[in-house]
Amino acid sequence: MIKIALVGATGIVGQQAIVSLINHPWFKITKLAASERSAGKKYRDALKDANGASKWWCPEDMPEEIAEMVVEDAALFDPTTVDMIFSTVDTSAAKELEPKYAKTTPVISTASAFRYEEDTPILIGGVNMEQAQLLDIQRKKRDWKGFIAPKSNCTISGLVVSLKPVLDKYGVKQVIMVSQQAMSGAGRTPGLSAMDMTENVVPYIPGEEPKVETEPQKILGKFVGDAIVAAPFGISATCTRVPVLDGHLVSAFVQTEKPCTPDEVKEVMKDFGREFCALALPSSPKHLIEVTDDPFRPQPRVDRERGGGMTVTVGRIRKDPLFANGIKYVCLAHNTKLGAAKGALQTAEYLAKYYLKLI
Amino acid sequence: MIKIALVGATGIVGQQAIVSLINHPWFKITKLAASERSAGKKYRDALKDANGASKWWCPEDMPEEIAEMVVEDAALFDPTTVDMIFSTVDTSAAKELEPKYAKTTPVISTASAFRYEEDTPILIGGVNMEQAQLLDIQRKKRDWKGFIAPKSNCTISGLVVSLKPVLDKYGVKQVIMVSQQAMSGAGRTPGLSAMDMTENVVPYIPGEEPKVETEPQKILGKFVGDAIVAAPFGISATCTRVPVLDGHLVSAFVQTEKPCTPDEVKEVMKDFGREFCALALPSSPKHLIEVTDDPFRPQPRVDRERGGGMTVTVGRIRKDPLFANGIKYVCLAHNTKLGAAKGALQTAEYLAKYYLKLI
Amino acid sequence: MIKIALVGATGIVGQQAIVSLINHPWFKITKLAASERSAGKKYRDALKDANGASKWWCPEDMPEEIAEMVVEDAALFDPTTVDMIFSTVDTSAAKELEPKYAKTTPVISTASAFRYEEDTPILIGGVNMEQAQLLDIQRKKRDWKGFIAPKSNCTISGLVVSLKPVLDKYGVKQVIMVSQQAMSGAGRTPGLSAMDMTENVVPYIPGEEPKVETEPQKILGKFVGDAIVAAPFGISATCTRVPVLDGHLVSAFVQTEKPCTPDEVKEVMKDFGREFCALALPSSPKHLIEVTDDPFRPQPRVDRERGGGMTVTVGRIRKDPLFANGIKYVCLAHNTKLGAAKGALQTAEYLAKYYLKLI
Amino acid sequence: MIKIALVGATGIVGQQAIVSLINHPWFKITKLAASERSAGKKYRDALKDANGASKWWCPEDMPEEIAEMVVEDAALFDPTTVDMIFSTVDTSAAKELEPKYAKTTPVISTASAFRYEEDTPILIGGVNMEQAQLLDIQRKKRDWKGFIAPKSNCTISGLVVSLKPVLDKYGVKQVIMVSQQAMSGAGRTPGLSAMDMTENVVPYIPGEEPKVETEPQKILGKFVGDAIVAAPFGISATCTRVPVLDGHLVSAFVQTEKPCTPDEVKEVMKDFGREFCALALPSSPKHLIEVTDDPFRPQPRVDRERGGGMTVTVGRIRKDPLFANGIKYVCLAHNTKLGAAKGALQTAEYLAKYYLKLI
Repeated sequence: MIKIALVGATGIVGQQAIVSLINHPWFKITKLAASERSAGKKYRDALKDANGASKWWCPEDMPEEIAEMVVEDAALFDPTTVDMIFSTVDTSAAKELEPKYAKTTPVISTASAFRYEEDTPILIGGVNMEQAQLLDIQRKKRDWKGFIAPKSNCTISGLVVSLKPVLDKYGVKQVIMVSQQAMSGAGRTPGLSAMDMTENVVPYIPGEEPKVETEPQKILGKFVGDAIVAAPFGISATCTRVPVLDGHLVSAFVQTEKPCTPDEVKEVMKDFGREFCALALPSSPKHLIEVTDDPFRPQPRVDRERGGGMTVTVGRIRKDPLFANGIKYVCLAHNTKLGAAKGALQTAEYLAKYYLKLI
Repeated sequence: MIKIALVGATGIVGQQAIVSLINHPWFKITKLAASERSAGKKYRDALKDANGASKWWCPEDMPEEIAEMVVEDAALFDPTTVDMIFSTVDTSAAKELEPKYAKTTPVISTASAFRYEEDTPILIGGVNMEQAQLLDIQRKKRDWKGFIAPKSNCTISGLVVSLKPVLDKYGVKQVIMVSQQAMSGAGRTPGLSAMDMTENVVPYIPGEEPKVETEPQKILGKFVGDAIVAAPFGISATCTRVPVLDGHLVSAFVQTEKPCTPDEVKEVMKDFGREFCALALPSSPKHLIEVTDDPFRPQPRVDRERGGGMTVTVGRIRKDPLFANGIKYVCLAHNTKLGAAKGALQTAEYLAKYYLKLI
Repeated sequence: MIKIALVGATGIVGQQAIVSLINHPWFKITKLAASERSAGKKYRDALKDANGASKWWCPEDMPEEIAEMVVEDAALFDPTTVDMIFSTVDTSAAKELEPKYAKTTPVISTASAFRYEEDTPILIGGVNMEQAQLLDIQRKKRDWKGFIAPKSNCTISGLVVSLKPVLDKYGVKQVIMVSQQAMSGAGRTPGLSAMDMTENVVPYIPGEEPKVETEPQKILGKFVGDAIVAAPFGISATCTRVPVLDGHLVSAFVQTEKPCTPDEVKEVMKDFGREFCALALPSSPKHLIEVTDDPFRPQPRVDRERGGGMTVTVGRIRKDPLFANGIKYVCLAHNTKLGAAKGALQTAEYLAKYYLKLI
Repeated sequence: MIKIALVGATGIVGQQAIVSLINHPWFKITKLAASERSAGKKYRDALKDANGASKWWCPEDMPEEIAEMVVEDAALFDPTTVDMIFSTVDTSAAKELEPKYAKTTPVISTASAFRYEEDTPILIGGVNMEQAQLLDIQRKKRDWKGFIAPKSNCTISGLVVSLKPVLDKYGVKQVIMVSQQAMSGAGRTPGLSAMDMTENVVPYIPGEEPKVETEPQKILGKFVGDAIVAAPFGISATCTRVPVLDGHLVSAFVQTEKPCTPDEVKEVMKDFGREFCALALPSSPKHLIEVTDDPFRPQPRVDRERGGGMTVTVGRIRKDPLFANGIKYVCLAHNTKLGAAKGALQTAEYLAKYYLKLI
């Protein structure tokens, strides 16, 4: 088994990572680390709040052996005691901790701290695995034995997966999108206020639109020589928060380079990712994309768990009336699975097998 | 007092019309009409369901004198007994009933049945009052003493009000928009299913997008000769339903003809409608548009009641990164007030005073 | 495999029965029946509404082989073609159809039509299996080869499971309870109105309180001679509807015959059902009751899936300040699993193995 | 005009007090005080959070003249500069600040700090105005020129108003109740977590049940000699939190001393409070109680604003099947109006006119 340390274990993304790793065939969590406040406590106790209530938020039960593990101080953690590190800490902690760990050990990160570094790919399963080569450059340049491989922003994971086959076949000129994002994206302590999110929409998510308007081009870029050349299309986004627990819905308007019909787009989306899915990584779904013909779908509550939360559901593919070549559609991705812990895990599986060759 | 008949009185829009007309200084409901099923019953009783529960949905109490009025059969109703008719029936009933009434009596309608007729304006207070002249053509052509003046689709009311000053000053080339529409727009019996609308978004509203993509151009068109020349811009829309009671939120991306800064747009929006508001119609707000600087606004639950539900709130005005000349913003309008009964009432007030000269 | 017909297959409870039977080790659905309207159609098509949207409401995918089965007309269905029948039709249909089927074939029913017949037990797994003997009386008296075995009202399933060990050890004198019931209990077409259930509570559920105030005494009664003698305690209930998808929460105040401490009650609840669970029926959970020490629990969304939706979660067990001998607590049961299709399935499993000896 | 200082002005209850006092015919806010953090800032600015968003939570606009007032430090505030003080600070601050103010100035408080003091009445408009005499004892004993008059716990305000006429006519032996409390009762910063309150019920509110089980007896007690003799009945309560914005719903089971029918109870409730309402205090409703015959009512969202949020709505009055003499019913009170700022204001109006004789 590949020994994994989970750093940031007490947060909501850390908890989801734990759940994703239950009975994993390759990986085993052997270390938990978190901030000094939790250090030295059993995991179960580290999650208790002042009222004695548990801050374990996942519907799945906390695994007993995880509950009994003693949490270490992330600042003092020795990365050489494990094979890989899952880092689910926040951005400011990631900036400090992840490079320290990466000196010796591969780090898969859910934070945005290193996403925009030139020598760092933002890997999404089945979309840009060839960009993993950039990690060689990163390691060489920074003199690291390990590396830092961050996941993408959760909002764009569904957009990027659905755009990739369109880009490959028809080219993409520009994208306009409005997101309707689930509340779990805002974390849990305290997270969003219940009264703000009751029969209401909040049309702003601080810091989100700049990420959404720039990450996809890098992710969908080409690895040329020893760098990524971003895909040359623009994105304009409005990001909103809706009273939904999980599942980010994106309404996309895509102007393509070449003409394409909705039926053609449907076909390339349905075909997309066959090779990657055929690798049968433990966290991969059967299909990267499912296209629904039900005009009322995708819906967050109903469709988010498709493919174990790893399949993007696309619906309402239709001609855009404005663009000479263009389509519009709605896509849905599970923000805390594909868009966070489980998506990072899928990347870790790929890297463990095909890049690090640990399997 | 101007005598008003309310036809379609038992429906949710009819109820909202009743509430809008409580203590109205000019208008008095003297007749109620509805389908045969309700005919002959007191209004209070016509609203009782099989369990004895009242289907009066408004938060305001049902006015006692309305409760005691006996509902007439809309099919047999004599339109000459009143000065004006408010029709809040559905589209198929409107097609049949409204022309019968219009032979003798002005009809203000919330239905879409006549919106797309060449000789029929879609009037929105402060936006296109000059199009009221088209009613002369309509009356002449159809040999009516009255007329039919329909309100617009509720989803676009906020968009159209906010676009008008931009169009006048900078020109509009194209608009892309995503709506997040409140549940009250789907009516009440049965309306939407509670389970569908629990922590969920439904990305489709049957029949909505074609209206949204065509009505604004007519409303914002010019009255030239004896017809309306539609404004020459295209719209692409995705309409979604969110778990909000009232208030349709629209995320708009607007490409303009001339360059404009967000600050300039903010100013023209704030200035918009002064003359119309100065007419001080009973249902008019102080401002047609309020622009908020709070990046988290407008929010449906918090902002929908501004100006008695007749003010459009606009926020997040910013440069669009894609269009050479373009802005994006979020706007909110109360779908059952500005977008329905009360918006129609404001139009009725305008027409009663300035077109029919009854005041 | 035991051949099962599912009658009422298109309704929400029927759908849940289908899901409960996926990969069942003993039972196989070989026939689907529903009303005349669905007869002759493939199941998949029978669920499509006028807009082409699927009325399949379960989060699990519709099993492909079920989707392809042709639905029969329940009125014409031949019960001798199967070993057991699952009836999930509504009460009025149940009154007519179930006795016809029972002439030849055992019927497990989710309807209330026969619950209050003297010769009919209301079986709940682990609570009153000895009452299955009453089916002998029923068959003899009615000259049936089969029988009708209905499940209980969904609201009381959690109450009855939690009361049983208290009754056995301390006696129960009276129970006062307030339910907060999930929306799925009201069905789906059309089910509850979204606007009624938005940030609201409806303090009345037609027909519910009389069931809640009488079924538990029969279920918890003793089988003496050839009849059930109801447990001699009274219940007073107020049943309310809350904006929750699944999971009925009951706040109970229980006056006992003998003194008992909260800790003692906790222990008898935790111990309850060991023997029954040891039978390891396919649908049984590991524990009939889980007692939580977290004062903020049980919560419907968080705890309803415990034990695959078959475990009752009890919390807040404390001394009642009014009764000399009394406790109060909160309990939660999954209304569409334990309280409906899956609870009925567990009963079917018990009866198949220990009463019919088909296994 | 009577000069009022509002201490705790930045909190949600303080904001509601401001709204309640807009255009008040007798009272004028001349001073605002809050914690040191807000001191020296204009009220408008004191409400801005780090993102520049306003923490003004009321649907009504912030009054311009309040927005411009400079907030004073509550710890340094000179109570002699006003005629009365509204204190909406939390309990720990109330313990320290209110006695300092009361030395010279009457204090109306929404905090619980002094509710359980023997010399302090808990006044509710129309229920126990005669207990205002206890303030004489309080002032004498503590050598205060002013006094402290706290409002009751918000959850019991509806219960106490509805119990009073029953107690007077039939006597009350014991009460069992389950509350379904709105989220606004938990405050706003941060208040409840949105994810906890999404399609969920939380069956525990820290510290609530002890208040609910003891305050009503004091409030409904008799002023005898120079003390209050508590009403001699017991209460057992379970308090739960539901996803509702405003309005606490209570399901009550009331054992009475004398027999009474639901119709009789309905009549005494409808008649209740006539004399008090006839005083026509500015914040008083026309009726303290409205009894609804609609079995589906009262509902929080629909009925909470009756009588400007000051009327208690009672429904579902019916015979209790357990108690020889008993009824059960459901009642609703607006927790942030009758149960908080506006209820306190009504008490202030009463005391200003009939106790302090300032009017």
